[in-house]
Parts: sequence; structure tokens; C-alpha cells
Amino acid sequence: MTSPSGSYALVHRDSRPLGTLVRLASGATFGGDILAICAGPCSVESRDQIEATAKAVASAGANVLRGGAFKPRTSPYTFQGLGAEGLRLLRDAADRNGLGVVTEVLDPRDVELVAAHADMLQIGARSMQNFSLLREVGEAGKPVLLKRGLSATVDEWLMAAEYLLLAGNDQVVLCERGVRSFDAATRNMLDLAVVPLLHQLTHLPVVVDPSHGTGIARLVEPMAFAAVAAGADGLLVEVHPNPAAAVSDGQQSLGFEEFALLMRHLPVVARAVGRNLPAASLVA
Amino acid sequence: MTSPSGSYALVHRDSRPLGTLVRLASGATFGGDILAICAGPCSVESRDQIEATAKAVASAGANVLRGGAFKPRTSPYTFQGLGAEGLRLLRDAADRNGLGVVTEVLDPRDVELVAAHADMLQIGARSMQNFSLLREVGEAGKPVLLKRGLSATVDEWLMAAEYLLLAGNDQVVLCERGVRSFDAATRNMLDLAVVPLLHQLTHLPVVVDPSHGTGIARLVEPMAFAAVAAGADGLLVEVHPNPAAAVSDGQQSLGFEEFALLMRHLPVVARAVGRNLPAASLVA
Amino acid sequence: MTSPSGSYALVHRDSRPLGTLVRLASGATFGGDILAICAGPCSVESRDQIEATAKAVASAGANVLRGGAFKPRTSPYTFQGLGAEGLRLLRDAADRNGLGVVTEVLDPRDVELVAAHADMLQIGARSMQNFSLLREVGEAGKPVLLKRGLSATVDEWLMAAEYLLLAGNDQVVLCERGVRSFDAATRNMLDLAVVPLLHQLTHLPVVVDPSHGTGIARLVEPMAFAAVAAGADGLLVEVHPNPAAAVSDGQQSLGFEEFALLMRHLPVVARAVGRNLPAASLVA
Amino acid sequence: MTSPSGSYALVHRDSRPLGTLVRLASGATFGGDILAICAGPCSVESRDQIEATAKAVASAGANVLRGGAFKPRTSPYTFQGLGAEGLRLLRDAADRNGLGVVTEVLDPRDVELVAAHADMLQIGARSMQNFSLLREVGEAGKPVLLKRGLSATVDEWLMAAEYLLLAGNDQVVLCERGVRSFDAATRNMLDLAVVPLLHQLTHLPVVVDPSHGTGIARLVEPMAFAAVAAGADGLLVEVHPNPAAAVSDGQQSLGFEEFALLMRHLPVVARAVGRNLPAASLVA
Repeated sequence: MTSPSGSYALVHRDSRPLGTLVRLASGATFGGDILAICAGPCSVESRDQIEATAKAVASAGANVLRGGAFKPRTSPYTFQGLGAEGLRLLRDAADRNGLGVVTEVLDPRDVELVAAHADMLQIGARSMQNFSLLREVGEAGKPVLLKRGLSATVDEWLMAAEYLLLAGNDQVVLCERGVRSFDAATRNMLDLAVVPLLHQLTHLPVVVDPSHGTGIARLVEPMAFAAVAAGADGLLVEVHPNPAAAVSDGQQSLGFEEFALLMRHLPVVARAVGRNLPAASLVA
Repeated sequence: MTSPSGSYALVHRDSRPLGTLVRLASGATFGGDILAICAGPCSVESRDQIEATAKAVASAGANVLRGGAFKPRTSPYTFQGLGAEGLRLLRDAADRNGLGVVTEVLDPRDVELVAAHADMLQIGARSMQNFSLLREVGEAGKPVLLKRGLSATVDEWLMAAEYLLLAGNDQVVLCERGVRSFDAATRNMLDLAVVPLLHQLTHLPVVVDPSHGTGIARLVEPMAFAAVAAGADGLLVEVHPNPAAAVSDGQQSLGFEEFALLMRHLPVVARAVGRNLPAASLVA
Repeated sequence: MTSPSGSYALVHRDSRPLGTLVRLASGATFGGDILAICAGPCSVESRDQIEATAKAVASAGANVLRGGAFKPRTSPYTFQGLGAEGLRLLRDAADRNGLGVVTEVLDPRDVELVAAHADMLQIGARSMQNFSLLREVGEAGKPVLLKRGLSATVDEWLMAAEYLLLAGNDQVVLCERGVRSFDAATRNMLDLAVVPLLHQLTHLPVVVDPSHGTGIARLVEPMAFAAVAAGADGLLVEVHPNPAAAVSDGQQSLGFEEFALLMRHLPVVARAVGRNLPAASLVA
Repeated sequence: MTSPSGSYALVHRDSRPLGTLVRLASGATFGGDILAICAGPCSVESRDQIEATAKAVASAGANVLRGGAFKPRTSPYTFQGLGAEGLRLLRDAADRNGLGVVTEVLDPRDVELVAAHADMLQIGARSMQNFSLLREVGEAGKPVLLKRGLSATVDEWLMAAEYLLLAGNDQVVLCERGVRSFDAATRNMLDLAVVPLLHQLTHLPVVVDPSHGTGIARLVEPMAFAAVAAGADGLLVEVHPNPAAAVSDGQQSLGFEEFALLMRHLPVVARAVGRNLPAASLVA
């Protein structure tokens, strides 16, 4: 469609028509009937914060804990993350609540460290074309969440994924998180049409981050519904005990109750397109 | 949120918190529990074409016939529409099949003519800031479908609607049809987050055009689902007896069977967010 | 290059390899060795304002007076221009100072009126794809200034010009005025590379509007230099007796002294690329 | 203007009103009266290629040799550069021709190696927000060329520079190389208005890359003129012995004669804005 088959041979749909199922050590899967629900704060801020959040999102039905220990920040003067200590807090909180862990790695020299704590390595939007990092992460033997670059075309994104597969790793999930636009009404422009488009072009699962994708907490639920209706294989949602006090991204984070509400409403939308939620699958 | 209340006082949500219900003479409504489904060809090409299409979309459950008689075309050498004759064909086909008519008016001097045949006047993306046309259409006493400009911000779009309301017409529906982007993978970038955002900012109903919004027929169904899940009050879908032979926009048009299939799948998604289809409401 | 020759046959360079010289009744030319310098306020506000401005820009070396009588305004609540009265004021001020007049026409029904007062009809960015207006202006028998749409591609822009030439008018000048971008640091993004690109693709002259193109008065002079160095056939510059008190676009307008300074500096840049200024040509 | 003073305190104009002069070990300077002219191939391909190019650009008047040894490539299947061997070839060729060397470093682990061969470390567009790399390069004690990200705002770009200064390095030059746009007519959209804007906002020198900025060889000369007229402190120009046979970026590269021609025409434009070329300064 947008690209001649062959230019990204390994990620191309033709190379695996039935699609790829990505499975974390924790059991969560991306690409099957059950949606993956990754939730948690933008940044790991403290043991209390991450523990409370892990408990809340797990009991609401999420199956993966997200949270940043190494943060890419536009300004050098803003909070850069807790680093290795953040990874340990994240791992502990996830383990105590039966969740997987997805967290970002920024530097090729940190891949081993992050891989030792996480079930899934996230490559952030600003790193999508950090080719050294792609190669290092590709060789780390852990599932990867590859976010779309700030203004990456679908072709460039698939080529970035091709670097990972070429390094021997086919456990790759693509994450649409909104692209740069001319309209400041939302933080980014969430490009949901890439969900079905990618499903035609590649065998890799596709998830959506409506939190970064809009930057506005009140838009997260409707865009989560839209993402699932468009065929997304899962969601990334920012959740914080007290969004107004978050050190980063508070404006787009859901509180515990808002997230619980979203998770109560989501199953009926998911079932409308033949999908189910992880919690629902446990209960059923 | 994005704009201080007051700058577009008439369209602002605060001026009518319960929302506006837009009702066509044919009975179709925008903004209530029942979705409006507008379907039809890009251009009215012939009596046979529009008759066949009207019959097909009506029997599949659409309640408004769309089709262009006056076409805005990038090149002066491409088909410019059948004009007044196209309007008559459109009206006849709609009447014989119990449908309303929405069609575009391009020139302020044609408003009276188009209003004599249509139930709803469409202002196209290229005309969103044609202020003479906005004033003339605002005074025509017919419901209006105001498409978003090719790269219009939400603020500019609401201001264009404000021109219509200021001219005395509050029967205005906003239509998201995708905006210009850097990625040629799709024809436009469908910005679904504006659906819930607009519902917060304005009392006017919001519909989505997944045909222009993606430019690719195979993406129309998933993006129609996503639009409804995001809270859209209706859809505009391009349908043609033989998309491969359409004089314009064939690549993004659904055939009759594809449209019927979409309409069979849509009710379950609509019900998941508390909405219903016009056909379903007739049956029930 | 970007488009197969033939798709816009009339404006294509091949149809007139030596280029088109556009000449106003006042004597100003676009496309020759002498640059056209169009200067004046965003809006005609009063007789005093336009008279003072005409005198100032003429004595600084401009040869065309610009100013809006019919204003396209995003909001219906802002100043919409003086209309016919503004046209008369503009004509009088220009005549008394030996200047041509370029002014915008928004509505096809106003073309005759505007053409009766102006030497050159401006089609604004928001009207670039107002095809009714293009046809009407194309038949008016006056030179045309066609501004680039807010996010128009070069191909779309050339196609809009093709409408004018197809209506029998080859006295068309293209005006780059900046396009919509993701960065709010400037009002628009001035795309100067279109100047040499258009000179390869079409025989029509190309001018640049650094005032709208940047939105910031202090950037006007360096971008005017850059435009001329890139090969522009002229400039449009907003000048106002008191920018801080302008009813529109004050932030991007030059005062009389700033404009005079620009005009004193410009000749040396112009001569560096083989061009001259109108004033210089009179003196020499 | 775009940002409150203080958010990027170290790069802000106020912290050094007279501007920063960046000086390479080879003697070339950025930010003074003499423009820096950096020329060379996209990729170092062979000893013969880089030697011939160094000789040609030096004799035409360039004072810095550019060329990639580590190449960031969208596809993993295209040429990735000669690596350490490329650095040696580049250094040798520059030394034999009295040129400085600027070359890109992609990986924080390669900073020491690249710094051992180069006079100036280039951070490419895709790495502008690679914060680990910024920190490592900031500590390397060599001048830095910081390219603007593919769709970076001016604020984000200045913040990236702030990382470098905060690491103790004030020898930083900003390079505009075009941003992503909706129009495929050119490869990128060259945003020349940032040149005077940055000169107001920061004390760091600003250079322009018209080769990447347009992607079209025939636009390089006019846009080089425009950049200098806008106040740029230097240029980056891609030059190749045989552009048609280049392994990368051939379409935008100048041949030796085209570059020599550009360099013969440039001094008169430079002098028009009070600048001079390195070669001219040697001769005079």
C-alpha cells in the first residue's frame, strides 16, 4: 500500500499473515483476543506512589504496569527520573500486584540494566530513530514497545521496527502516541487510522496511548474507546494517585477512580469488536 | 479549554449545555441518541448512478443521501459536477427512497438554488473560511454541515460556525474530515480527538467522514467504528455502485456490499456507547 | 519535477520559457529586473491613515500601495474592513502618490467593484481554492496576485493559477506568505524555497510577503533580504503609521521609519542578485 | 519572545549580548564577520572520493570538510557508513587541504573516538533530543554543531543546546536543515526565519544546510544566498565528485563545478549584509 513489500521485509504482513503474538514473562499478551492494558504514572516518583498506583490499576483490571525511571525531558532543569532506584520500585510494585513491567530505556549503555528489571523495553518517541539503541534493544532478548516518533511516517516507523527484527527480536509492539500538529488544541494529534493501516502492512501488534496522544485527561476515555474500536491490541494509560501533584504529565493523567471507570466501560466496546479485557478473561 | 469562553459566544457549550439537536425536513436528526448516517457518491454522475446508490444505502440503513452537484476540484480539467441537473437527480433519488439530502454549495450566488433542493447545505473544507458563503448560508434557513478546513484549528472552525449562528442559524453540524499531514500513508489525518473535545467546547453536533479522512476504502469501516466509539453523532460515507469506475474519489468509496456490511456491524459498536442507528430505531 | 508537465499546462514554464512580465496600469512591473515593492497597512482604517502611509511608502521607494477594504477575519466580531469606502480611500491615496493599488477581493459578486478601483486583484490565502472567485477574477481583465493557501502544496497552488489562466488571464503573480506549521515561534513558516522552485516550474512571477510570513516585525527586514536573495520578483510589506494602534496585524507591521530603513538597505542585496528597486530605477 | 527568559538561561541572548564566537582548532570560526563554509559529501565512501572532494571544496573557498562516517539511516539495509575508517580518511583529507572536520556522532559510546578525529562534533536531526548523547558530547571539549530535529520547535532546539552548555560546553553552533512538511515538492521545508529569530533569542551562531533543507541540487544556490542574506553565520553544503553515483543524497549534492560557481557568486551576497567568505579573507 504505502510501501513496496520487501523494503521492510521482516515486519511485513506477508512474512507472517496470521500476525505475531507478543508475550511478556508476566503472562500479558499483545495481539490476541485479550487486550493488553498498560497503566501507571508518567514517572516513578516514590515507593508509595508506585505501590498505590500498581494496586489501583491491577484491581481495575490492567495487566502491565508502566512508569518511567529514565525520563527524556525537553529541559535539562526538569525531573529526569529516579534511574536504577526507580526500576527497582517499579519491579517490586508490579510483582506484588501480579503485573508485568514496561519502562523506557534511553541509552544503549542502560539496556542491560533496564532489561534486568522490565518485562518489556520501551523505545520512546524521541528515540524511534536512535539506531544504536534499536540495535542494542533488538539484541536484549526482551519484548519491545516501539513508540512512533514525533513526526514519523508509517514507513519510517516500520523501518525502525525492521532494525529490531533484524537484530533477532520479533517480539515487537508498535505504539501510536500522537504526532506533532499545527493545532495546539490537543498536545499531539492521535492518528488512529494507523491502527488498521498497520494491521494491513505488518504482522506486529499495535497499541495506542491516548494520554500522550491528547494530553487532556477528559479525552482519554473516549479516545481509548475509539482506539479499541479501530482494532488496537491494547492501551497505554497514564494513571497517578493525584494527577494535580504529578511531577510530570499531570494534565493528561487519570486518577484511580477515573481509571476504574474507564475499565468498567471498556469491556462492552471491546466485545463489540470481538475483543476482551484481561480482567474479564480472568473472571470468565 | 482551548479558548476563553466568550470569543465564540454563540456556539459555546455554556450557551446551551444540553446540546443542539439538528433536524432535517426528512426527519433525520443529528445530536440525539440516533446516529445520522449520510451516504452516497462523491459526485452525482447520472440518474442511474444516484438512483441505484440511494436505494442501496437506504436499504442498508442510511437516512441521508450525500452527493456533489457542484464540485470543488483542485484542477480545472477534472469533472466539475452536473450542477443544477445534479441537484434534481439527487432530490428525486432521495425522495423515492425516504432519504434526506445533504450537498455542497460553493458559491454564495448558488445558495438559493441549492437550498431549494437540499435538506442540508454542506460547506466544504476549502470553503470553511469563505466568509461571504458562511453569511449567505447562515441566512438560508436550512441546516448546515460545516466541514473542517484542510488545516483549520479547532478555534478557527468554531469561529466559522459562529458566523453561521450570528446570521441566525443554529442548525449547524460540524464534520471532521481529516487534516493535512506530513505522512502520505493516508490522504488526510483523521483527528478523532476533536469529537470529544468539541462536545466539551460547543453544543453543536459533530459527525465524522472516514472516507475523506483516510482516502482508503479498507480503512473506512474501522474508522467509522472508532468515530462512533469516540462519540460522533453521525457519519458521512462515500458509496458508489462501482468504485473503480467513479469519476472522483473511487479509491476511498465503498461498494454497496461493503457499505451494507459496515451497517450490519455498526449497531453493536453504537450500542456500546449508548447510541443507535436510524434503521434500528425504525425496526424497534 | 514535482508534477508531470501538462497537468497545469498553461502556467508551466515550458509554455513560456522566458517568463511572464506582469504590468500594472500604474506602470509597476513584476518579473523583470526591477522588483515590485507593495507596501501599506493590513486594513484601510481611515483617510488619514491611508494617505499618510501612501506618502511614506512612496517616498521610501515603494511602487504599489497595498491595503484591505474587504477583510477575511477568523472571528465575525473583529473589524471586517471599510468596504467600498475603503476602496475609494485606497485609490485616492495611491493616485496622489503615484502608486499602483493591490487589494483583496473575497466575494465573486464584488469583483467588478474592486476591479473598478484596483490595479491588481488579490486572492487571499483563505480563497486560493475558492474556484468561483478564481473564475470571476480570471475574467476581470486585471492583473492578479494569488496568495498561497494556508497549507497548499505547490501543485495545488499552480492548479489554482491554472484556473485564472484558463479564464483568459495570464497576468498572474504568485505570492508566498508562509504556511501553517507546528511551531508557534512564528505566525507562519515562510517557505522561501518555493521561490526558485516556482521559477523552474512556471513562467509566472513570484513575490514574498515577509510580514504574514513571520508575523513578527523584527523579522521582516532579514526575511525581505532573504526573499530577494532567493530570487523573488517583489515584496509585500505591511506598513502602518502606528503599528501598536493598528486594528489588525500590528505586531507584524513596520512603522514608517523601519520601512524607510529596509528600503535603504534593500538595493545592495537586490544588486547582489542582479536586481534593482523601483526608486533606484527612477533615480538612475 | 517565544519563551520566557530564564527557561533556557545559558543559551539566552541576555547571558552574552555580544554573541558567541565558535572557533575550531583548524582556525575556522562561526559567528564573526567571516562565514564558515562546511562542504563535503553526505557519506565518506572511499579515500579517493573524500580526497578529491576535500581538494575541490578547499580550492573553491570552503574552510571545513563535512562528511559522515557513522550514518543514521531510515532503513537498516542501506549503507551505514565506514565508521572508524571513515573518520581517518576524513581527517587525512582535511589535513592535506587545510580544512577543519565536522562529522556526526550517533552513539554516546563513540564520542571519544569521533572527538579524536574531528574538530567539531555534529548532532544530527534525529539525535537532537538524544539526551544521553547531548550530555556526553557536552563533556567532550570540542565545538558542537547541533542540527534542528525533524519537527523540533525553536524552544525545544534551544533546550537541547542548553543541555550542551549545562555540561560545560559553550562552543555550540545551531544548524537549520529544514523541517518536516505536508508538501512533497521539497524534501524538507527550510525555515529561514529561525536565523534572525535565533539571533534575537540566543547568543549562539546559526548556520544553514540548504542541501538537506531542500533535497534538490538546483535549489541549493538560491537558498544559500537567502540564508546568508537572512544573517546566517555559515553554510553546510553537500558536495560530491559525481552526485549521480553517490551512495546517499545524490539528488541534493552539488558537483565540484556547481559548488565552485556557488562560491564565486556568494561573496557579493555576503558583502551586501556585511559578511565575508573565508577564502576572500585570505586573499584580501
